[in-house]
Amino acid sequence: MEIDHVAIVVKDLEATLRLYTQTLGFTEVYREIIDDQGVEAVGLEAGPSFVELLLPLDERSSIARFRGDAPTKLHHTAYRVYDIEAKLADLKGKGVQLIDEHARRGAYGSLIAFLHPKATGGVLIELCQPHPLR
Amino acid sequence: MEIDHVAIVVKDLEATLRLYTQTLGFTEVYREIIDDQGVEAVGLEAGPSFVELLLPLDERSSIARFRGDAPTKLHHTAYRVYDIEAKLADLKGKGVQLIDEHARRGAYGSLIAFLHPKATGGVLIELCQPHPLR
Repeated sequence: MEIDHVAIVVKDLEATLRLYTQTLGFTEVYREIIDDQGVEAVGLEAGPSFVELLLPLDERSSIARFRGDAPTKLHHTAYRVYDIEAKLADLKGKGVQLIDEHARRGAYGSLIAFLHPKATGGVLIELCQPHPLR
Repeated sequence: MEIDHVAIVVKDLEATLRLYTQTLGFTEVYREIIDDQGVEAVGLEAGPSFVELLLPLDERSSIARFRGDAPTKLHHTAYRVYDIEAKLADLKGKGVQLIDEHARRGAYGSLIAFLHPKATGGVLIELCQPHPLR
Protein backbone atom coordinates (compact mmCIF):
# COMPACT_ATOMS: atom_id res chain seq x y z
CA MET A 1 0.00 0.00 0.00
CA GLU A 2 1.32 3.41 -0.90
CA ILE A 3 0.43 6.67 0.80
CA ASP A 4 -2.60 8.36 -0.75
CA HIS A 5 -2.51 11.35 1.56
CA VAL A 6 -1.49 12.73 4.90
CA ALA A 7 -4.35 14.72 6.42
CA ILE A 8 -3.81 17.78 8.59
CA VAL A 9 -6.70 19.40 10.42
CA VAL A 10 -6.41 23.19 10.42
CA LYS A 11 -7.95 26.20 12.12
CA ASP A 12 -7.32 28.84 9.45
CA LEU A 13 -7.46 27.27 6.00
CA GLU A 14 -6.26 30.28 4.01
CA ALA A 15 -3.29 30.97 6.31
CA THR A 16 -2.26 27.31 6.20
CA LEU A 17 -2.64 27.27 2.42
CA ARG A 18 -0.36 30.28 2.12
CA LEU A 19 2.26 28.42 4.18
CA TYR A 20 2.03 25.24 2.11
CA THR A 21 1.85 26.89 -1.32
CA GLN A 22 3.77 30.18 -1.15
CA THR A 23 6.35 29.19 1.47
CA LEU A 24 6.80 25.45 1.04
CA GLY A 25 6.00 25.28 -2.68
CA PHE A 26 3.04 22.89 -2.92
CA THR A 27 0.33 23.21 -5.59
CA GLU A 28 -3.40 23.05 -4.87
CA VAL A 29 -5.07 20.21 -6.80
CA TYR A 30 -8.57 19.87 -5.38
CA ARG A 31 -10.85 21.70 -2.98
CA GLU A 32 -14.29 20.60 -1.93
CA ILE A 33 -16.77 20.28 0.89
CA ILE A 34 -17.13 16.72 2.17
CA ASP A 35 -20.52 16.89 3.90
CA ASP A 36 -20.21 13.38 5.24
CA GLN A 37 -17.06 14.26 7.17
CA GLY A 38 -18.08 17.82 7.99
CA VAL A 39 -14.96 19.38 6.49
CA GLU A 40 -13.68 21.49 3.65
CA ALA A 41 -10.77 19.54 2.13
CA VAL A 42 -7.93 20.95 0.05
CA GLY A 43 -5.53 18.54 -1.64
CA LEU A 44 -1.95 19.59 -2.38
CA GLU A 45 0.15 17.63 -4.84
CA ALA A 46 3.03 15.71 -3.24
CA GLY A 47 4.41 13.47 -5.96
CA PRO A 48 1.92 10.62 -6.39
CA SER A 49 0.40 11.45 -2.99
CA PHE A 50 -1.36 14.44 -1.50
CA VAL A 51 -1.18 16.56 1.60
CA GLU A 52 -4.81 17.14 2.52
CA LEU A 53 -5.79 20.11 4.66
CA LEU A 54 -9.09 19.66 6.50
CA LEU A 55 -11.06 22.61 7.85
CA PRO A 56 -13.86 21.51 10.22
CA LEU A 57 -17.18 23.09 9.23
CA ASP A 58 -18.44 22.90 12.82
CA GLU A 59 -16.14 23.89 15.67
CA ARG A 60 -18.09 21.55 18.00
CA SER A 61 -17.31 18.48 15.85
CA SER A 62 -14.99 15.71 16.99
CA ILE A 63 -12.38 16.62 14.36
CA ALA A 64 -12.31 20.23 15.62
CA ARG A 65 -11.99 18.97 19.21
CA PHE A 66 -9.14 16.67 18.11
CA ARG A 67 -7.30 19.71 16.72
CA GLY A 68 -8.12 21.83 19.76
CA ASP A 69 -6.30 25.15 19.93
CA ALA A 70 -3.43 24.08 17.68
CA PRO A 71 -3.34 25.96 14.35
CA THR A 72 -2.67 22.63 12.60
CA LYS A 73 -2.41 19.00 13.73
CA LEU A 74 -1.66 15.72 11.93
CA HIS A 75 -4.99 13.88 11.73
CA HIS A 76 -4.62 10.65 9.75
CA THR A 77 -2.66 8.79 7.10
CA ALA A 78 -4.53 7.33 4.15
CA TYR A 79 -3.15 4.33 2.29
CA ARG A 80 -4.12 3.75 -1.32
CA VAL A 81 -5.87 0.52 -2.28
CA TYR A 82 -7.45 -0.51 -5.55
CA ASP A 83 -10.21 -2.78 -4.20
CA ILE A 84 -11.29 -1.22 -0.94
CA GLU A 85 -14.13 -3.67 -0.27
CA ALA A 86 -11.75 -6.63 -0.65
CA LYS A 87 -9.22 -4.99 1.68
CA LEU A 88 -11.93 -4.27 4.26
CA ALA A 89 -13.11 -7.89 4.08
CA ASP A 90 -9.50 -9.08 4.47
CA LEU A 91 -8.94 -6.90 7.53
CA LYS A 92 -12.28 -7.87 9.05
CA GLY A 93 -11.32 -11.52 8.54
CA LYS A 94 -8.11 -10.81 10.47
CA GLY A 95 -10.18 -9.40 13.35
CA VAL A 96 -9.33 -5.74 12.76
CA GLN A 97 -11.95 -3.39 14.20
CA LEU A 98 -13.28 -0.97 11.57
CA ILE A 99 -15.09 2.35 11.81
CA ASP A 100 -16.48 1.85 8.31
CA GLU A 101 -17.42 -1.71 7.36
CA HIS A 102 -18.05 -0.48 3.81
CA ALA A 103 -16.55 2.34 1.78
CA ARG A 104 -18.07 5.80 1.65
CA ARG A 105 -17.35 8.85 -0.45
CA GLY A 106 -14.12 10.78 0.20
CA ALA A 107 -12.50 13.76 -1.49
CA TYR A 108 -11.55 13.92 -5.18
CA GLY A 109 -13.91 11.13 -6.20
CA SER A 110 -12.32 8.56 -3.89
CA LEU A 111 -13.90 5.82 -1.83
CA ILE A 112 -12.66 5.70 1.74
CA ALA A 113 -13.00 3.79 5.00
CA PHE A 114 -11.42 4.29 8.41
CA LEU A 115 -9.96 1.58 10.61
CA HIS A 116 -10.77 1.90 14.30
CA PRO A 117 -7.92 3.58 16.23
CA LYS A 118 -8.29 0.84 18.86
CA ALA A 119 -7.05 -1.61 16.21
CA THR A 120 -4.09 0.53 15.14
CA GLY A 121 -2.50 1.65 18.41
CA GLY A 122 -4.28 5.01 18.41
CA VAL A 123 -3.20 6.32 15.02
CA LEU A 124 -6.09 6.98 12.66
CA ILE A 125 -5.66 5.02 9.40
CA GLU A 126 -7.81 5.46 6.32
CA LEU A 127 -8.01 3.24 3.26
CA CYS A 128 -8.53 5.23 0.07
CA GLN A 129 -9.46 3.90 -3.36
CA PRO A 130 -8.80 6.65 -5.90
CA HIS A 131 -11.35 7.52 -8.57
CA PRO A 132 -10.60 5.30 -11.58
CA LEU A 133 -10.18 8.35 -13.84
CA ARG A 134 -7.92 10.23 -11.43
CA MET B 1 7.90 18.10 -2.88
CA GLU B 2 6.74 14.53 -2.52
CA ILE B 3 6.32 12.64 0.73
CA ASP B 4 9.48 10.82 1.80
CA HIS B 5 7.95 9.31 4.91
CA VAL B 6 5.33 9.60 7.59
CA ALA B 7 6.87 8.96 11.00
CA ILE B 8 5.00 7.28 13.83
CA VAL B 9 6.46 7.13 17.32
CA VAL B 10 5.72 3.81 19.00
CA LYS B 11 5.88 2.23 22.43
CA ASP B 12 6.24 -1.44 21.42
CA LEU B 13 8.17 -1.72 18.17
CA GLU B 14 7.66 -5.44 17.57
CA ALA B 15 3.90 -5.32 18.24
CA THR B 16 3.52 -2.33 15.91
CA LEU B 17 5.62 -4.06 13.26
CA ARG B 18 3.37 -7.12 13.41
CA LEU B 19 0.36 -4.84 12.85
CA TYR B 20 1.92 -3.04 9.89
CA THR B 21 3.46 -6.10 8.21
CA GLN B 22 1.28 -9.13 9.02
CA THR B 23 -2.07 -7.34 9.30
CA LEU B 24 -1.78 -4.35 6.97
CA GLY B 25 0.67 -5.89 4.49
CA PHE B 26 3.67 -3.55 4.55
CA THR B 27 7.26 -4.76 3.98
CA GLU B 28 10.21 -3.79 6.17
CA VAL B 29 12.94 -2.05 4.14
CA TYR B 30 15.39 -0.62 6.66
CA ARG B 31 16.04 -0.78 10.37
CA GLU B 32 18.70 1.14 12.23
CA ILE B 33 19.60 3.09 15.33
CA ILE B 34 19.78 6.85 14.73
CA ASP B 35 21.90 7.96 17.69
CA ASP B 36 21.48 11.62 16.85
CA GLN B 37 17.70 11.38 17.24
CA GLY B 38 17.75 8.81 20.03
CA VAL B 39 15.53 6.34 18.21
CA GLU B 40 15.46 2.98 16.52
CA ALA B 41 13.87 3.56 13.10
CA VAL B 42 12.17 0.97 10.92
CA GLY B 43 11.16 1.93 7.39
CA LEU B 44 8.23 0.20 5.70
CA GLU B 45 7.79 0.45 1.93
CA ALA B 46 4.76 2.52 0.88
CA GLY B 47 5.11 2.96 -2.88
CA PRO B 48 7.85 5.57 -3.42
CA SER B 49 7.50 6.67 0.22
CA PHE B 50 7.96 5.02 3.59
CA VAL B 51 6.09 4.65 6.83
CA GLU B 52 8.78 5.07 9.49
CA LEU B 53 8.26 3.64 12.95
CA LEU B 54 10.34 5.33 15.63
CA LEU B 55 11.07 3.69 18.99
CA PRO B 56 12.56 6.14 21.51
CA LEU B 57 15.72 4.72 23.07
CA ASP B 58 15.16 6.77 26.22
CA GLU B 59 11.70 7.00 27.77
CA ARG B 60 12.63 10.39 29.28
CA SER B 61 13.35 11.91 25.84
CA SER B 62 11.13 14.57 24.26
CA ILE B 63 9.95 12.17 21.54
CA ALA B 64 8.85 9.64 24.19
CA ARG B 65 7.06 12.42 26.09
CA PHE B 66 5.36 13.52 22.84
CA ARG B 67 4.02 9.97 22.43
CA GLY B 68 3.04 9.70 26.09
CA ASP B 69 0.95 6.66 26.96
CA ALA B 70 -0.38 6.14 23.43
CA PRO B 71 0.85 2.91 21.82
CA THR B 72 1.51 4.86 18.60
CA LYS B 73 1.22 8.52 17.58
CA LEU B 74 1.81 10.41 14.32
CA HIS B 75 5.05 12.35 14.84
CA HIS B 76 6.07 14.14 11.64
CA THR B 77 5.83 14.22 7.87
CA ALA B 78 9.02 14.31 5.84
CA TYR B 79 9.07 15.85 2.37
CA ARG B 80 11.67 14.74 -0.14
CA VAL B 81 14.06 17.29 -1.60
CA TYR B 82 17.11 16.82 -3.79
CA ASP B 83 19.17 19.79 -2.61
CA ILE B 84 18.41 20.15 1.08
CA GLU B 85 20.90 22.96 1.71
CA ALA B 86 19.38 25.03 -1.11
CA LYS B 87 15.86 24.41 0.24
CA LEU B 88 16.94 25.37 3.78
CA ALA B 89 18.52 28.57 2.44
CA ASP B 90 15.33 29.34 0.48
CA LEU B 91 13.13 28.84 3.55
CA LYS B 92 15.47 30.85 5.77
CA GLY B 93 15.34 33.65 3.19
CA LYS B 94 11.54 33.57 3.48
CA GLY B 95 11.83 33.98 7.24
CA VAL B 96 10.90 30.41 8.18
CA GLN B 97 12.24 29.41 11.60
CA LEU B 98 14.31 26.22 11.42
CA ILE B 99 15.35 23.67 14.04
CA ASP B 100 18.27 22.61 11.85
CA GLU B 101 19.99 25.34 9.87
CA HIS B 102 22.02 22.66 8.11
CA ALA B 103 21.30 19.05 7.25
CA ARG B 104 22.24 16.17 9.53
CA ARG B 105 22.19 12.43 9.09
CA GLY B 106 18.81 10.66 9.00
CA ALA B 107 17.80 7.05 8.44
CA TYR B 108 18.66 5.02 5.33
CA GLY B 109 21.56 7.24 4.33
CA SER B 110 19.43 10.37 4.06
CA LEU B 111 20.20 13.95 5.01
CA ILE B 112 17.48 15.62 7.04
CA ALA B 113 16.50 18.89 8.69
CA PHE B 114 13.47 19.89 10.74
CA LEU B 115 11.53 23.11 10.39
CA HIS B 116 10.48 24.69 13.67
CA PRO B 117 6.86 23.81 14.58
CA LYS B 118 6.31 27.50 15.40
CA ALA B 119 6.78 28.18 11.67
CA THR B 120 4.39 25.44 10.53
CA GLY B 121 1.34 25.84 12.77
CA GLY B 122 2.47 23.16 15.21
CA VAL B 123 2.94 20.24 12.81
CA LEU B 124 6.49 18.91 12.72
CA ILE B 125 7.86 18.99 9.16
CA GLU B 126 11.13 17.41 8.08
CA LEU B 127 13.01 17.88 4.83
CA CYS B 128 14.71 14.69 3.66
CA GLN B 129 17.26 14.30 0.89
CA PRO B 130 17.53 10.61 0.02
CA HIS B 131 20.89 8.92 -0.36
CA PRO B 132 21.92 9.31 -4.03
CA LEU B 133 22.21 5.52 -4.44
CA ARG B 134 18.84 4.76 -2.80
